[in-house]
Amino acid sequence: MRIALDVMGGDHAPGPIIQGAVKAVAEIPGLEIALVGDSSKILSHLKLDNPGDLHPGLQIQHCTQVVNMDEKPAFALRRKRDSSIARCWELMAERTVDAIVSAGNTGATVAHGFMTRLFLKEVLRPALSVVFPSVTGPSVLLDVGANTNAKPEHLYQYGVMGAIYAENMLKIHNPSVALMNVGSEQGKGNDLVRETAKLFEHSPLSSQFTGNVEGRDLHQGTANVVVCDGFVGNVVLKASEGLVELFLKTAAQEVLQKVQHEQAAVREAFKDLVRRYDYSEYGGAPLLGIDGICIVCHGSSGPRAIFKAIEVAANFANDGLNKHIVERLQMTPKTTAISSSP
Amino acid sequence: MRIALDVMGGDHAPGPIIQGAVKAVAEIPGLEIALVGDSSKILSHLKLDNPGDLHPGLQIQHCTQVVNMDEKPAFALRRKRDSSIARCWELMAERTVDAIVSAGNTGATVAHGFMTRLFLKEVLRPALSVVFPSVTGPSVLLDVGANTNAKPEHLYQYGVMGAIYAENMLKIHNPSVALMNVGSEQGKGNDLVRETAKLFEHSPLSSQFTGNVEGRDLHQGTANVVVCDGFVGNVVLKASEGLVELFLKTAAQEVLQKVQHEQAAVREAFKDLVRRYDYSEYGGAPLLGIDGICIVCHGSSGPRAIFKAIEVAANFANDGLNKHIVERLQMTPKTTAISSSP
Repeated sequence: MRIALDVMGGDHAPGPIIQGAVKAVAEIPGLEIALVGDSSKILSHLKLDNPGDLHPGLQIQHCTQVVNMDEKPAFALRRKRDSSIARCWELMAERTVDAIVSAGNTGATVAHGFMTRLFLKEVLRPALSVVFPSVTGPSVLLDVGANTNAKPEHLYQYGVMGAIYAENMLKIHNPSVALMNVGSEQGKGNDLVRETAKLFEHSPLSSQFTGNVEGRDLHQGTANVVVCDGFVGNVVLKASEGLVELFLKTAAQEVLQKVQHEQAAVREAFKDLVRRYDYSEYGGAPLLGIDGICIVCHGSSGPRAIFKAIEVAANFANDGLNKHIVERLQMTPKTTAISSSP
Repeated sequence: MRIALDVMGGDHAPGPIIQGAVKAVAEIPGLEIALVGDSSKILSHLKLDNPGDLHPGLQIQHCTQVVNMDEKPAFALRRKRDSSIARCWELMAERTVDAIVSAGNTGATVAHGFMTRLFLKEVLRPALSVVFPSVTGPSVLLDVGANTNAKPEHLYQYGVMGAIYAENMLKIHNPSVALMNVGSEQGKGNDLVRETAKLFEHSPLSSQFTGNVEGRDLHQGTANVVVCDGFVGNVVLKASEGLVELFLKTAAQEVLQKVQHEQAAVREAFKDLVRRYDYSEYGGAPLLGIDGICIVCHGSSGPRAIFKAIEVAANFANDGLNKHIVERLQMTPKTTAISSSP
């Protein structure tokens, strides 16, 4: 298992990224990590003089440029040909690595993936997928921003990929798949979701398809996999993350103000909650549908989140997820997809 | 000020709806409320024998049908011509009342409004708008579901209407207006938001327009008014409501488990939080752009939420909001709207 790790990407890179890699090669057997970034910075961070002194599971892939966190993806694609993100994708395209992991500029990482066209056979558009906590356990939401102009056949494929991910990675037997909508009744919403519902109903996935869910169902865990356009998914994911963060802060302050002697216990309870709602626990967002593996991490990822993402990439490869995806998509009669095209 | 109140709409109707009305006519001077619904049920709830015994500010508008909370709006429109929702809109269309308030089936209430075409001059599509709590104070989000196939010129008008609402009802001087998007940089997102941004930039609202915001900005209060398509707005609103509800419950349980002697104080703190994040405090969701006033309340609204919604309707009328909206929309050069049409 070989992984290209974008060492330059992230709010606090390269420190926590390298620390995550060091932990990963120490704990995951048979793992090799290519640290992609500025060679001298990497060595200096590891307090080494030359690459020969690296852990045998680590090697350095030097590159000269970094895509900043707030840089426009289009600009990065055009002007930063030797960025750590570009290099990661090159390594995967030439099969030097099996997977890439980046906590850098998400837009740029996804844009590079779309540019390489390194898509799995049968896949029309890859989808950025997140695992998030719900009342009934972890659920999968996709797409959260890879493709903001989705068509019904894209959403259908997201359902197939999300279901395979839930089954293999989250060990949910026969996961339910639902469509994000403005109401649960049939016929609700815009043309995109109405057309998509028809595709699901007449597909091999029809027995797992449970129809529409609303925004509030997301955190209730009404469905194991929730499918939506990248625009909607991105807004609802970021709003939820922001709300949890804000809420934990406000709630902790309020409760601490009212409690006099048991402040330590209250602090402990809130720390547990922070951990529970910490999306990094779930190991980053896989870009499903790539011929290879791409895990996108939060910019704020610490060593633990990076380690978890590397672990997810390794399990993804071991479970042969991509083979399952291609097989399942091949089972879908072509007429289903074609009939829905405008 | 005359209001038609849909007494039959809501999860626990008519009890809490009637109680809200009784409080409103007692406290708001010059208010007259038409209780729209089943006459005998209303009288029996008020423990009265005949309508002549009603408070002078109250009267009954009898109707025979009720739209259920989970009924399809299209079905209600066709088959329930004598529903309390239909009657409310009729009363407003014939100018018997200045405003309507309903905690019933939101989809049906909005659909009736669209069917009556009781739109303000210049308004292309009304927008369902919510006021929600953020770090910097209340903000306005619209549209949260009236129109799930919005065009750029609709979103632009939402901005105008939201700004006037924020200015007059929330007393925010020169409110900022932003566009919900998947990133804050210019050029992000889908065709709809890119076209809309151009409209804002070349409009009389350009000085208040601050560009794109992301999902996480919503609760941070980055902008006073956030504009989006009804599909996106509906999903993000319901997801946020669901998350707060879930989170308050989980957090309270967790903290209570860890605390031994100060459980009462913890409970008190969480009760305050529930109040703070209670959307009903903000008095329901106005359907902006209607030639009249329509306030949609949560199905779960209690007497206090209904009272607040009636109060909002009264202030809406007193502040002459609709006059401001028409004036401001008339200031927009026609070419702006026309150039954006596909």
